[in-house]
Amino acid sequence: MEVEKPSLNHIALVVADLGAALDFWGGQLGLPSDAAQTIPDEGVEIAFLQLGAARLELIQPLEQDNGVARYLAKRGPGLHHLCLEVPDLDVKLDELAAQGIELINDTPRERDGRRYAFVHPASTGGILLELYDRN
Amino acid sequence: MEVEKPSLNHIALVVADLGAALDFWGGQLGLPSDAAQTIPDEGVEIAFLQLGAARLELIQPLEQDNGVARYLAKRGPGLHHLCLEVPDLDVKLDELAAQGIELINDTPRERDGRRYAFVHPASTGGILLELYDRN
Repeated sequence: MEVEKPSLNHIALVVADLGAALDFWGGQLGLPSDAAQTIPDEGVEIAFLQLGAARLELIQPLEQDNGVARYLAKRGPGLHHLCLEVPDLDVKLDELAAQGIELINDTPRERDGRRYAFVHPASTGGILLELYDRN
Repeated sequence: MEVEKPSLNHIALVVADLGAALDFWGGQLGLPSDAAQTIPDEGVEIAFLQLGAARLELIQPLEQDNGVARYLAKRGPGLHHLCLEVPDLDVKLDELAAQGIELINDTPRERDGRRYAFVHPASTGGILLELYDRN
């Protein structure tokens, strides 16, 4: 039996100007986009665009002192994280931990009915990785 | 008639240690991977992994004085570029140029039978964007 592989859920990019980025990716490039939304408790404004079977997430910090703002100030615009879906998140986290992979969340967290966990960039080659539970 | 939308071809990440990154993304996470290959005229070693309908490209600089090495030294590991496929690259480049988008390649270049052009980060919100011709 073939093992089900991870797939891409979304690519999250940090930008300095969400409106201008939406004009490009949504307007000029033509990716279908949802309306931008503010996430007050994270101090960011975000928007999702459809990219084939996956999505592009654009994130703009609205404050100077949160993690996304510091990331943007330090590294400039670019990738914030990749999010992959895995068939069984609990099993995968146990496997990764047993192999010495550094997990930010040892057990899945949940938001809007979606179970997820983050893997530390130290174990991925420098990229913050979010894993979604496909189940 | 519905207009055909751009889709994701690959996500290219710069890493400092291609072997370690392949161990994680290919081995521990389980993405199917091609063998790593050296691109002598660009001074890099790369590998592609399958990610659903798209691919993840890992790039490690092999020299200190090329663009990828400077990018890694300046920004750390992370996104190098995104590559999207568009239905008709010539038409799309003309449209983008007419809208004031800054193109690195005004007309498509070709490599291995693949027609492509790069869009400057100044027009995308800070992300280097490669466009492939789907035709």
